Amino acid sequence: MNRKPIIAVIGDGSLQKNSEKEIFAEQLGTALVTAGYRIICGGLGGVMEAAGRGAHASPVYSDGDVIGVLPGCTPDAANPYIDIPIATGLDHARNFIVANSDAVIAVGGGSGTLSELSYAWIMRRLILAYRVPHPAGSPEIFADWSAIVADKKLDDKDRCPQIEGDRVYGVDTAEDAVNILAEKLPLYISRPACAGKR
Amino acid sequence: MNRKPIIAVIGDGSLQKNSEKEIFAEQLGTALVTAGYRIICGGLGGVMEAAGRGAHASPVYSDGDVIGVLPGCTPDAANPYIDIPIATGLDHARNFIVANSDAVIAVGGGSGTLSELSYAWIMRRLILAYRVPHPAGSPEIFADWSAIVADKKLDDKDRCPQIEGDRVYGVDTAEDAVNILAEKLPLYISRPACAGKR
Amino acid sequence: MNRKPIIAVIGDGSLQKNSEKEIFAEQLGTALVTAGYRIICGGLGGVMEAAGRGAHASPVYSDGDVIGVLPGCTPDAANPYIDIPIATGLDHARNFIVANSDAVIAVGGGSGTLSELSYAWIMRRLILAYRVPHPAGSPEIFADWSAIVADKKLDDKDRCPQIEGDRVYGVDTAEDAVNILAEKLPLYISRPACAGKR
Amino acid sequence: MNRKPIIAVIGDGSLQKNSEKEIFAEQLGTALVTAGYRIICGGLGGVMEAAGRGAHASPVYSDGDVIGVLPGCTPDAANPYIDIPIATGLDHARNFIVANSDAVIAVGGGSGTLSELSYAWIMRRLILAYRVPHPAGSPEIFADWSAIVADKKLDDKDRCPQIEGDRVYGVDTAEDAVNILAEKLPLYISRPACAGKR
Repeated sequence: MNRKPIIAVIGDGSLQKNSEKEIFAEQLGTALVTAGYRIICGGLGGVMEAAGRGAHASPVYSDGDVIGVLPGCTPDAANPYIDIPIATGLDHARNFIVANSDAVIAVGGGSGTLSELSYAWIMRRLILAYRVPHPAGSPEIFADWSAIVADKKLDDKDRCPQIEGDRVYGVDTAEDAVNILAEKLPLYISRPACAGKR
Repeated sequence: MNRKPIIAVIGDGSLQKNSEKEIFAEQLGTALVTAGYRIICGGLGGVMEAAGRGAHASPVYSDGDVIGVLPGCTPDAANPYIDIPIATGLDHARNFIVANSDAVIAVGGGSGTLSELSYAWIMRRLILAYRVPHPAGSPEIFADWSAIVADKKLDDKDRCPQIEGDRVYGVDTAEDAVNILAEKLPLYISRPACAGKR
Repeated sequence: MNRKPIIAVIGDGSLQKNSEKEIFAEQLGTALVTAGYRIICGGLGGVMEAAGRGAHASPVYSDGDVIGVLPGCTPDAANPYIDIPIATGLDHARNFIVANSDAVIAVGGGSGTLSELSYAWIMRRLILAYRVPHPAGSPEIFADWSAIVADKKLDDKDRCPQIEGDRVYGVDTAEDAVNILAEKLPLYISRPACAGKR
Repeated sequence: MNRKPIIAVIGDGSLQKNSEKEIFAEQLGTALVTAGYRIICGGLGGVMEAAGRGAHASPVYSDGDVIGVLPGCTPDAANPYIDIPIATGLDHARNFIVANSDAVIAVGGGSGTLSELSYAWIMRRLILAYRVPHPAGSPEIFADWSAIVADKKLDDKDRCPQIEGDRVYGVDTAEDAVNILAEKLPLYISRPACAGKR
């Protein structure tokens, strides 16, 4: 690849201050930029903002490393760490764009994050998921989807037959994430020009 | 509502002949049209085609009751039971449109179906899910998502605080589905003009 | 074609009562349904509403003949003649869907209509345009785009080399429109599965 | 604005080597980056590639200044000057995203460019258009749309009543373009969160 790879960071749109997820997302943002990646996200709060803040804290951060793909028509909705707001006007359909980046890393997340995980799986993207140490949820309420899907396959179609052990790769630390990206990203390069059957 | 409600039927894009899911989807198509609903779907095979075939078998079926929202640019990709093909050209982003119908019923399904379930939850739609009697999958491989999410909440945000017992409503038969629609659809009418935070 | 063809009617979102454009749009709606077509439009007011009202007035109108592809997330925004509201949430990006129908007929129109005309041209659709008898506009202000593009080609790429005389076909009456549809629609059937270069 | 403004450069997808349009687009790319703007485009050839090449030639160019919003699902389709490919999978519907940037500059262009001009007008964006010195086209064939719309209004709705002289601003040189941007961009900041009536 002749350009910086673009890694999507997805997850909860709001977070408790200093929660495990916020700390992880911020460390992840720093680690990704330090390792030479750009970050793409939905441009709003929570995990998206924490990752952006972390990105700006990297010693090698440069302006343009953080992209926000917004649901509305105005770039003003972007969090303050978004260097490049893309105001799509497509509402949640913009999740398809976020998910179709070079790789996707999920941190907790509700149904919006789940739509992005689903799309990343369809698009045969490399997916990492934070094994949230103390996930929310209960037998009747799904929550923290990154913890639920970590180390699993999102469906039983053989989406990448040539990649042994293909799955959502669970991670515990930002360092883990960067290591797995380095090892696995070259395997997940190919993408179809059109994904849906036509 | 001054018009026929439009119910999305979502699920696997291919099915084994005479499988439980195919039989259910076909019976569901018939039951929905007989009860006065239109059907909307992704326009392709499997559950989408079975539901359409069932729709055409209803004694009260009329031309225009089955709508297919296709990923590609050509309506020719639609299955033969689609009366109204909408060729979006939006690839899987068209799942957002399918999910934003008056109610959504899932029958099995992989990651594409999961994206639609996620969207329907975000959009606060009434969601029903077939409790597949013999679901595929394993501890490490999700499959038949309708069975996984039946009788659960897709995240821990209180999306419909005014609706007691709001959840994905599990169903075993097409008759169940029609009964729940009749009871619950009036509760799930309101939709925001814009869903994503802007 | 094994189904009713779907004809987009596009144009001004608001109209003066009893204006030439309103009368034409209403007569067009009636004539299209009487000739066995469905109508698709943006679902809102002006030309879209007049065409729908005309459609409902046809002696052969049946429920399901009028489809509205809305910019917002709620079907309640549809005008009262829309049988099938498709609430896309895609804002003006939904114009791409409207334009990619079996044929497109423009009645006046501003920049929104112009985006749909552009898309219909890209997608190699059959396009008809009302030669508004007394168009608005001035040398410095474009208006009533259907009158401007009638009988012309929208760009100098040879989009349909096999169709002699390919252009935007100008029409003066609803009868004209139906006659041209009958003659030309069979020529404009083929559509690429993906339009954009990939 | 707390970030680099993002200027869309739109126009023909293929160009003759050393044509007036190619030279202008390349000079424009250089001038925009030198003046502190980022460039967004459709990511493919012709004007898009020439502007990107020019951008990379600016003495102050930095990686991340050139964004390509692609119609397909794979970033590999981007021209070699795209630093940040956004592979939307939305086909020509992605034109809505390109047009909704901070300002739009058109260089020649066919119907695809025209859809972007239409959208930029709807979205009340600042629009500049190259007055192609020797435009193609004829009384019956539109071509080089930037020359046609330069110095005009795209419809007769008063989209920006507070901006005196609002129109598509015609330009002859890259220097003109940068001067008009500096003067006018502050006037065109406000964008609605949702553009379509809802």
